[in-house]
Amino acid sequence: MRTSQLFISTKKEAPAEAELLSHKLMLRAGLIKRLGSGLYTWMPLGLRVLRKVEAVVRSEMNAAGAQELLMPAVQPKELWEETGRWDVFGPQMLKITDRHERQFCFGPTHEEVITDIARSELRSYKQLPANFYQVQTKFRDEIRPRFGVMRAREFMMKDAYSFHASFESLQQTYDVMYGAYSKVFTRLGLQFRAVAADTGAIGGSGSHEFHVLADAGEDLLAYCPTSDYAANVELAEAIMPDSPSALRAAATQAMTDVDTPKQTACADVAALLGVGVERTVKAIALVTVAGEFVLALLRGDHNLNEVKIAKLEGMADFRFASDDEIRAALLCPPGFIGPVGINADIRVIADLTVAAMSDFICGANKPKFHLSGVNFGRDLPEPHIVADIRNVVNGDVCPDGKGGVLELCRGIEVGHIFQLRTKYSEAMNCVFVTEQNTQQAMEMGCYGIGVSRIVAAAIEQNHDAKGIIWPAAMAPFSVAVVAVGYHKSEAVKAAADQLYAQLVAAGVDVLLDDRNERPGSMFADMELIGIPHRVTIGDKALAEGMVEYVARREGEMKKIALSEALAWIQAQTKI
Amino acid sequence: MRTSQLFISTKKEAPAEAELLSHKLMLRAGLIKRLGSGLYTWMPLGLRVLRKVEAVVRSEMNAAGAQELLMPAVQPKELWEETGRWDVFGPQMLKITDRHERQFCFGPTHEEVITDIARSELRSYKQLPANFYQVQTKFRDEIRPRFGVMRAREFMMKDAYSFHASFESLQQTYDVMYGAYSKVFTRLGLQFRAVAADTGAIGGSGSHEFHVLADAGEDLLAYCPTSDYAANVELAEAIMPDSPSALRAAATQAMTDVDTPKQTACADVAALLGVGVERTVKAIALVTVAGEFVLALLRGDHNLNEVKIAKLEGMADFRFASDDEIRAALLCPPGFIGPVGINADIRVIADLTVAAMSDFICGANKPKFHLSGVNFGRDLPEPHIVADIRNVVNGDVCPDGKGGVLELCRGIEVGHIFQLRTKYSEAMNCVFVTEQNTQQAMEMGCYGIGVSRIVAAAIEQNHDAKGIIWPAAMAPFSVAVVAVGYHKSEAVKAAADQLYAQLVAAGVDVLLDDRNERPGSMFADMELIGIPHRVTIGDKALAEGMVEYVARREGEMKKIALSEALAWIQAQTKI
Repeated sequence: MRTSQLFISTKKEAPAEAELLSHKLMLRAGLIKRLGSGLYTWMPLGLRVLRKVEAVVRSEMNAAGAQELLMPAVQPKELWEETGRWDVFGPQMLKITDRHERQFCFGPTHEEVITDIARSELRSYKQLPANFYQVQTKFRDEIRPRFGVMRAREFMMKDAYSFHASFESLQQTYDVMYGAYSKVFTRLGLQFRAVAADTGAIGGSGSHEFHVLADAGEDLLAYCPTSDYAANVELAEAIMPDSPSALRAAATQAMTDVDTPKQTACADVAALLGVGVERTVKAIALVTVAGEFVLALLRGDHNLNEVKIAKLEGMADFRFASDDEIRAALLCPPGFIGPVGINADIRVIADLTVAAMSDFICGANKPKFHLSGVNFGRDLPEPHIVADIRNVVNGDVCPDGKGGVLELCRGIEVGHIFQLRTKYSEAMNCVFVTEQNTQQAMEMGCYGIGVSRIVAAAIEQNHDAKGIIWPAAMAPFSVAVVAVGYHKSEAVKAAADQLYAQLVAAGVDVLLDDRNERPGSMFADMELIGIPHRVTIGDKALAEGMVEYVARREGEMKKIALSEALAWIQAQTKI
Repeated sequence: MRTSQLFISTKKEAPAEAELLSHKLMLRAGLIKRLGSGLYTWMPLGLRVLRKVEAVVRSEMNAAGAQELLMPAVQPKELWEETGRWDVFGPQMLKITDRHERQFCFGPTHEEVITDIARSELRSYKQLPANFYQVQTKFRDEIRPRFGVMRAREFMMKDAYSFHASFESLQQTYDVMYGAYSKVFTRLGLQFRAVAADTGAIGGSGSHEFHVLADAGEDLLAYCPTSDYAANVELAEAIMPDSPSALRAAATQAMTDVDTPKQTACADVAALLGVGVERTVKAIALVTVAGEFVLALLRGDHNLNEVKIAKLEGMADFRFASDDEIRAALLCPPGFIGPVGINADIRVIADLTVAAMSDFICGANKPKFHLSGVNFGRDLPEPHIVADIRNVVNGDVCPDGKGGVLELCRGIEVGHIFQLRTKYSEAMNCVFVTEQNTQQAMEMGCYGIGVSRIVAAAIEQNHDAKGIIWPAAMAPFSVAVVAVGYHKSEAVKAAADQLYAQLVAAGVDVLLDDRNERPGSMFADMELIGIPHRVTIGDKALAEGMVEYVARREGEMKKIALSEALAWIQAQTKI
């Protein structure tokens, strides 16, 4: 295509409301245009990228044996009432009333619709397994849409749903889809990780999220560089090689009051004492739903994992204690509280790491004082409960037992696969006749990919100060041929037109920049837009039979003979 | 693809609610599945057809220089208020309120959104013309959705919008799009006509509808087989070679009362008198918005064209008179009314044909009587107004002046192109800077194709008692290889697998029917589904090295050597 035929609208500045880098770059490069809160038009250049992602997703879904269909976006309330989700889904669901006062929603997801299809179309074990997918516009009425297409209200999603006669069959398809997802993100040229995800109320281990790694990611992930272990930090287990008490060293110090007039944070106390923060213990005051006051103990540099502690007995739906509650229970203001000398009724939950510590430093339960040389058993009772209640940190032992060490990174969730089991099939009576002629609820899996979000995630992972750097498979064009002086120099025009024609004939996705613009402005546009390869044709080099080549990611200019340009580009763009 | 990997769900009977043949066949062939009123899932087989239509549309839009983008389905109320259409569009627009109580609609069309894009992105004449299109899910809350995807509420549409610095430029793009539409329907293998359409309030001649010709079509079209004239019957002009009075023969009969005790319809009166119905005149009583009683005269075998008569002075929004109003004005019950001897104040509007008649038969304004031998000027005054107020009929002179004769046919509207001119750009201040540095509202065109409706329309045009007969470009598969005894005969399996592999390698879109079903049932499925070419591989013919070929449209079986089957099919499927 020629730029003269393509709508290009690059901007020097992004609107102030764009916070995230990918959002800014997408607006500046003219890939998207805002219509309203969480509503974006995909402009011609952006749509080219979106379609390339779609094509890779489709190709891998087809290869995985999934069949494409297309369900309506608008779904009747009655179906959602069968699963109880009409009321449960919450305000994210955009509800609609039609002219006959019947209620519908703009589908945020399609479990109900596909299960309705399956229960009427799949009757026998002979028809199972079956796996259906669609690429479709979804709507979720986010309370605060932001980050452009990263968290838009209207977005493009690939959703697949599989139906099975047995759990084994579900597990098999789940594994195939896991593999297909890995291929999708690999083909798209993205650094990603599949992480074990929380299966919530359904339980089991059958759920994985696929994350594109990027500093701006909303999710914190823990992974092991030497194995394939990866998990959301909320779920990653912090393990110990032995029981905490077996690891605990013997006490060597006497418990001593330490004057900490202004130091309330562990790091500040440690600095005052000239010791590492890992020698400190912080106490976090919590209140259970039953109204019980509880003290959680964590090493000073560790953070409470609310998901983990909520799973302990009586701790579901706990909350943090108020300052007044802390004063009432411990007779001490926040900032100096600790586990020593407190009312014996107060339940103390110590993290595994804390339970293995000796001679530690903690709050003294006395304003402006901490204690050093504190030891369990001697200065205070053993904790009531010892458990893994913290987030893992860099350097923690990997819980898969293969001897590796965890590292943390941030990720953007772009895919999620899930073993639904019989949650929907039981609620909607989606049964089949077994080989033994009995009726049984189908096992189900669901598999989502945020197609439009992938575009933003790819930019978060692949950019520099000049703009986007598209991975080959997602680039709107593989090659930009920038013709400097196309409208002034016959030689440039002839060379550019010829190379363009050759590349088109060779099946290379090429954009010929034939605009009458300053070279700097054309280069800046092609860099902002992120086209992976650029060939510049200008009078000066052309006089020597040469053109200039720059790879977007490397940025270094090479001179190439015009006569070899076609072959050179073909070699660079071969995926 | 193999049938064992494809979800096929054919049915012997269509549900009772399906009235239209295409709707029945689509349900029976398992192309679509109903979710709710006017809401259909495109099942895998149906989606293949839909995607083929989409691909042809895209290819011709791109060739016409239109650029694809994708606008949100959900549109804010504020934009529609700028054009006043929020209130005007009526209950067909599905209105939505989001969680923040802001109002939106599920876009029934996108003039407002694209004009909003154009006014901020297209600022200079240098950026014009520009033509954008999208293929998108639309929603129109039809009061009575019916006929399956023919008149669904949620449907797939290609909508394009062009922007211009001058009317000449609009006209140019309009012509290009007219050509592109013709290519789309030609490539899809459909018999169609482009007909001049009513431009309503905007006026001018810049609107054409594209109709697929089919007996079940909702629209009645008039076309000339010897020229390219075609128009909706509502708009086709009934012309006369000369003025009616010049064509009128001299009176030869005396006006006579005719006893017609039970005959009220012209045809019955003519039959009673033993003359042709074209000798009779019927009077139709109308009331204008001002309350004036008007008599319209038409030849007995002609029908009133309400669009045409409404354009006469004072006749806008007329209605038919009630029986009581007729009795009050003419002192005669309906069925026997006529123009003779009536109050001179009553305005008489005669169709051109009637004005040219002499010695005609009409109601006597006397219960149970008609008059014969009636003549204008002698028995009643010349009509107050003489005009073309009827629908054209088979055999009318073509109004293009090329000497042809009109024929009538029925059509299904699948495309509409329209010169919007400055209706939206003026309402929304969509202006550009001209070469003379002045500001001017852009000229606009819009161009729609009912992508999902095309699938149904194609079936209405292409079917037989056995099912669908897809035109080549729309077929879900080009060729069905039916392997009879695939699971029993090694020879059949080997031959079928080999031919299948050869066809796949040759790029032929082939479906291998490897199901363990009765041959009759497999044939019936492939015929119902409408695959254009079928090769049957069975033991008997195979023993002689032969396979059987049937073209779906012809239905005649030919024996072909297995060794020549590949070449034969390639020759048949070459488009």
